[in-house]
Amino acid sequence: MTRVAVIGAGPSGLAQLQAFATAARAGIEVPEVVCFEKQGDWGGLWNYTWRTGLDEHGDPVHGSMYRYLWSNGPKECLEFADYPFDTHFGKPIPSFPPRAVLYDYITGRARASGVRDQIRFNTAVRWVSWDGSRFSVSVDDRTGSRTEEFDYVIVATGHFSTPNVPEYPGFDTFPGRIMHSHDFRDASEFAGRDLLVMGSSYSAEDIALQSAKYGAKSVTISYRSAPMGFGWPSGISEVPGLERMDGRTAVFTDGTSREVDAIVLCTGYQHSFPFIADDLRLRTANLLCTPNLYNGVLWIDNPRMMYLGMQDQYYTFSMFDLQAWYARDVILGRLPVPPREDMAAHIDGWTARLQTLANPEEEIDYQADYLRDLMKDTDYPDFDLDLTRRHFKVWEHHKEESITGYRDRAFTSPCTGSQAPLHHTPWWTEPDDTLATFLRTE
Amino acid sequence: MTRVAVIGAGPSGLAQLQAFATAARAGIEVPEVVCFEKQGDWGGLWNYTWRTGLDEHGDPVHGSMYRYLWSNGPKECLEFADYPFDTHFGKPIPSFPPRAVLYDYITGRARASGVRDQIRFNTAVRWVSWDGSRFSVSVDDRTGSRTEEFDYVIVATGHFSTPNVPEYPGFDTFPGRIMHSHDFRDASEFAGRDLLVMGSSYSAEDIALQSAKYGAKSVTISYRSAPMGFGWPSGISEVPGLERMDGRTAVFTDGTSREVDAIVLCTGYQHSFPFIADDLRLRTANLLCTPNLYNGVLWIDNPRMMYLGMQDQYYTFSMFDLQAWYARDVILGRLPVPPREDMAAHIDGWTARLQTLANPEEEIDYQADYLRDLMKDTDYPDFDLDLTRRHFKVWEHHKEESITGYRDRAFTSPCTGSQAPLHHTPWWTEPDDTLATFLRTE
Repeated sequence: MTRVAVIGAGPSGLAQLQAFATAARAGIEVPEVVCFEKQGDWGGLWNYTWRTGLDEHGDPVHGSMYRYLWSNGPKECLEFADYPFDTHFGKPIPSFPPRAVLYDYITGRARASGVRDQIRFNTAVRWVSWDGSRFSVSVDDRTGSRTEEFDYVIVATGHFSTPNVPEYPGFDTFPGRIMHSHDFRDASEFAGRDLLVMGSSYSAEDIALQSAKYGAKSVTISYRSAPMGFGWPSGISEVPGLERMDGRTAVFTDGTSREVDAIVLCTGYQHSFPFIADDLRLRTANLLCTPNLYNGVLWIDNPRMMYLGMQDQYYTFSMFDLQAWYARDVILGRLPVPPREDMAAHIDGWTARLQTLANPEEEIDYQADYLRDLMKDTDYPDFDLDLTRRHFKVWEHHKEESITGYRDRAFTSPCTGSQAPLHHTPWWTEPDDTLATFLRTE
Repeated sequence: MTRVAVIGAGPSGLAQLQAFATAARAGIEVPEVVCFEKQGDWGGLWNYTWRTGLDEHGDPVHGSMYRYLWSNGPKECLEFADYPFDTHFGKPIPSFPPRAVLYDYITGRARASGVRDQIRFNTAVRWVSWDGSRFSVSVDDRTGSRTEEFDYVIVATGHFSTPNVPEYPGFDTFPGRIMHSHDFRDASEFAGRDLLVMGSSYSAEDIALQSAKYGAKSVTISYRSAPMGFGWPSGISEVPGLERMDGRTAVFTDGTSREVDAIVLCTGYQHSFPFIADDLRLRTANLLCTPNLYNGVLWIDNPRMMYLGMQDQYYTFSMFDLQAWYARDVILGRLPVPPREDMAAHIDGWTARLQTLANPEEEIDYQADYLRDLMKDTDYPDFDLDLTRRHFKVWEHHKEESITGYRDRAFTSPCTGSQAPLHHTPWWTEPDDTLATFLRTE
């Protein structure tokens, strides 16, 4: 029997199990699918852990999730077309849910599909190689190691777990905590403190806001090329690049300086797959179009090797779903695998267009067009892709209008057309991120 | 040619290179020795890094070293018999040096022996297996992976890098930093804060003292079975086990509670070798006598596989040296490898005696006896082992007398007989841990 290994049971891995379960329910014969998950439960990054650094088994902690994280994009832009929010929660809910609510949604679909018994929990994949006809997958399930053979391997381990950690002069003598955002957990840690946040992307934006919201005395954001330029609330400011630390004093390239108690490096993540043999291993920066992956999924040197969700992301869960449906249909033989040179040429076309993108709006269109191609190829349920495209652009404007207020807006579902209600409390003044409080309607 | 792989270039790995270099200088033909080191420089734990969690390559950070660490035992009990402190520093130095001084000493010997070109830096060992006649060692040198064949593998990766991290109720909602001592770096981080330190061994003792020394408002040490019971300076206290965290409040098993800002788990380390195939992998707790290692070194199921420094340690550098000399002489064929059952019986004898040990003094004698056996077997230069045994016992009493003052004592060298001078400043009032300040004589 054909055997498929899925590595990781987060949103991408669960999407793959969902894709096969959907086909099986329709009476189609599907291969044996085995999902390896190194954590003790499913949900990937959305499975919050207080642990940092190494986990209870001595492996790198997967999670980069922190407390009080709320979605930073409208939930309507990541909705599962086969399992709308209204279906899961029994009613429309606001557009920017906190982590616990999205965790409930992701895992709720997986529970409903009965895929849990396909997942080997607490099982880390140590090595994947190709022996000429099949893949060898060596795993460690904490009682010992074993090697299994598979016909397909689908890597769904994400790319927000291995921090990219630059060094600056004076870090080795800074008398306070230096951490990457990967190890950030509870903003209250910095209440009353002066914090330096380094970076200018989503993590820097959100961790700076969180820290201010939960009581930091000041937050200084240091950018390398350009400031984010939002209308920051009082206490947050942006300064140019860090030149060096001199004890507690951060000295910036414009000659200004600031005393700080702690440093959070929001300096991004590496695509890291140390468990994959060189000839199968994706090496890429964080791009909207990844090299060597046809349709963003098939490893062109060996298309039985597949990757999900490895792109830079506006679209998330819905993109992983479309990729998973596509991967499934290639495995089921419903979709062809073109000759290598055709696949490479196809990637070249997308890469060429990538170079022309001038702003976030064009990036959103680019990724929407990628999703549209996958929608055409697969039977993933239709949803209003154009609406999500427009939502993203409106959302970008909302952020420009108010970085503390954009999460108070509401959008319409591209799957059901229902209008999200407004949340009962403005995000900036709501410290409580529990599911119960979020879903409360009075 | 016979090929020997040494994994790790810390005190144990460098001891192994020293052992072979010494034989080579004496005109003995030695095998090709290749040492793999995942860090960018040598010294193992003594190579301080500000990094925590994952390193610049995405691998677990090896170091557990923190700033302001001073030796917690007399340097005379870890002195290299072939390279005394007086030789390296050109004069007698005080008995409790800070990290930078010990780093200079360890790496000074290695530099003098010219072994650096045997070390492959930035090279992580990913997998070691036995193919029936040789070992396959797969490494990642950050440009790619490769596999080399070896006749012997010597594991010298230490056992203070993979934290043992227990979970307690309420950790997931504690609004402050929770870290293992592995990630502790600069005690100044806790100046003015209330700190909870969990544990009752060397790390707990030293991190509690450090944090108080550098300005913590209070340090509460929670023990599981028994308090350390030292005469703590003001601001440090010991309480029983933690029952739970309730927000910031630590609730202990005696019903008392304390508000804390941060938690440092000094809960020990795991012997972790995820890169070694099951049939070659040491699995042990932290014991004075490790299971399945004959003479503490040879893996009895395959004595070409060797481990250095895997014991619980009173003796450190001198023990690693003796083990390295022993390993070398087995490889050179100067010492026999007994039949497996004889090796197992020998370990059983030591294990039986281990059960009878009633106190630290007996443990010291036990480990000294182990070293004496290795001294008899090898030509490692003689030193006064009995003197070090007595030193350890005196040191234990000094600690009972004054936990803040024991580092102000001075001992005589078991190698040269020279008497260490007293340090110019009491440890408790000396914030400066640089080599220059320590060696200053006026």
